[in-house]
Amino acid sequence: MARARQERAEITRQSILDGAAIAFDRFGFGAASLSDVVKHAGVTKGALYFHFQSKEALARTLMDEQFQVSEGVPAIEEPGLQTVIDLTHQMAHGLRSSVRIRAAIRLVLEFGSFTNPDPTPYNTWIDTAFGCLKPAQDRGDVLPSLDLYDLSTFLVGSFTGIQVTSHVRTGRGDLHTRIVDLWNFLLPGIVPADRLPRFDPAGSPACRAELGLTTTPDSVAVAVG
Amino acid sequence: MARARQERAEITRQSILDGAAIAFDRFGFGAASLSDVVKHAGVTKGALYFHFQSKEALARTLMDEQFQVSEGVPAIEEPGLQTVIDLTHQMAHGLRSSVRIRAAIRLVLEFGSFTNPDPTPYNTWIDTAFGCLKPAQDRGDVLPSLDLYDLSTFLVGSFTGIQVTSHVRTGRGDLHTRIVDLWNFLLPGIVPADRLPRFDPAGSPACRAELGLTTTPDSVAVAVG
Repeated sequence: MARARQERAEITRQSILDGAAIAFDRFGFGAASLSDVVKHAGVTKGALYFHFQSKEALARTLMDEQFQVSEGVPAIEEPGLQTVIDLTHQMAHGLRSSVRIRAAIRLVLEFGSFTNPDPTPYNTWIDTAFGCLKPAQDRGDVLPSLDLYDLSTFLVGSFTGIQVTSHVRTGRGDLHTRIVDLWNFLLPGIVPADRLPRFDPAGSPACRAELGLTTTPDSVAVAVG
Repeated sequence: MARARQERAEITRQSILDGAAIAFDRFGFGAASLSDVVKHAGVTKGALYFHFQSKEALARTLMDEQFQVSEGVPAIEEPGLQTVIDLTHQMAHGLRSSVRIRAAIRLVLEFGSFTNPDPTPYNTWIDTAFGCLKPAQDRGDVLPSLDLYDLSTFLVGSFTGIQVTSHVRTGRGDLHTRIVDLWNFLLPGIVPADRLPRFDPAGSPACRAELGLTTTPDSVAVAVG
């Protein structure tokens, strides 16, 4: 009985987060109202307040969720440069397919960058990238002269802007292709020449299979079922 | 007499834009009110409405101003790869020193990317970069295999995110250093090896002199008076 109640509570909580994601993705933190959240979630205001104390609490929960993307990457147990490449495609896929990821990233950019600047999400991604690049450099896949923390900081900043630009210019339709470009332009400057063939800017075969991506020489497309 | 009136009108108009920049930089488009603008501008609401019909008209004027940055770059008459490098440092300097540039970029990101998506500012910068990279590629400074439109799109996206990340993490204190990183990581992948020594990731001497930048091997600092 207690278990069934707990499960119902979790379903309600997830419905609220789905509703909040729709509202934040569409209107942003400032303009989204708790009435919007309740409407899209299909719950009562009482249920909403039982689970979340404020609009900010909803926003923080959604922003924290983005890091679950990195859990889906194959071979994260043996991380390396290809893991970082795959992570960028995973995140791109999340932005294209999940309103919860889209809401999280809009919140990080609007609420977490301007309204209430908080470096935590950026620093968490920088640490994740660093954790993959360190073993990569140790095994000779990344040039020994490079500062990996600076490289990780560059990657997170660059990805952040590339997805904004792709969102505005193409509704994120070209996002995977823009990420392939990032890696094509960048890899020769960070990988020893003889190691370059080991890395695929379009994502590893396992990553592409998981995300349903097909590749052509110049671009990546989402496979049509 | 008419001329004096015209000059007074222009001074008032600039005061309004200064006040609007302070309000938008601090509160964002959604939260900034015309009362904030009037307060920071030191003008009457009547004067404000004489010059600008709406908050959106103010925002659009400020967003358009960002392109004036490219007018200050030396040697724009003979553009090339170094011109693009210098432009990124000019823009970084503008973000650090001018509330009007800061307001413009916050508006582009918040208002122009989410509230009312408009690719124009991004496309204008992409075209500017392309216009510099085309002659660079023609004279052999950029690898002939590269698609310059894709490269320009990458640069604009990457810069956009790097400045957001630098803003959140360091109040833009490390922005010039992060841009030096961008070019250090990128140049080997886009420039033939024998041409690399021709380009300075920290900006040309003329650019650094104009912006008052001093360089150390690993970073760029703003010279202290």
